Amino acid sequence: MSPNEIARTPKPPYHAVIFTSLRTDGDRGYEHTAQRMVELAAQQPGFLGVETARTGDGLGITVSYWESEEAIANWKAQAEHQVAQQTGKKVWYTDYFIRVAKVEREYGKVG
Amino acid sequence: MSPNEIARTPKPPYHAVIFTSLRTDGDRGYEHTAQRMVELAAQQPGFLGVETARTGDGLGITVSYWESEEAIANWKAQAEHQVAQQTGKKVWYTDYFIRVAKVEREYGKVG
Repeated sequence: MSPNEIARTPKPPYHAVIFTSLRTDGDRGYEHTAQRMVELAAQQPGFLGVETARTGDGLGITVSYWESEEAIANWKAQAEHQVAQQTGKKVWYTDYFIRVAKVEREYGKVG
Repeated sequence: MSPNEIARTPKPPYHAVIFTSLRTDGDRGYEHTAQRMVELAAQQPGFLGVETARTGDGLGITVSYWESEEAIANWKAQAEHQVAQQTGKKVWYTDYFIRVAKVEREYGKVG
């Protein structure tokens, strides 16, 4: 499961967490933790997939997909993820925004 | 309105179109059209904002926000956008996927 691919999700409905962020300068442990969080999320019950992209020093968008609101709540409360969230607020992000949405329909072409 | 910023959207509920894609090699007119589509989308009734990111030659994620399903349908049917969609399928993307979702809640810190 690589976040640098289009996620193979089941048929809707399912849930999406759209996380957009602007980074501070320098790595400061960010890349290591970002990779670890993808690994950890993938082990969570109800995880369906994740996609991530960042334009140079600009906007980052990570979308994770989940079976239920309960799965999203459990991931938000996961202990190691809680630490990452706090570090994100204090160290890595100048701005961030999270939107929780219900995917209702989809279409496209995936290899 | 720059797609390289966190969008300032109104309070939920509203709709999100999550467009993920993998590019073919070379520009082939892509950047020009991508920029034009952001300008055009912003002129559409019911447009609320757009965010976009792409990791090098990897995954691109564009999320656009809309007041209603009707606004999304009208944008999809817009003539110049129709041409861009066709060119995207034939020329710019090896794979692409569109998820239409309803944003139900949100939180974060924006400037």
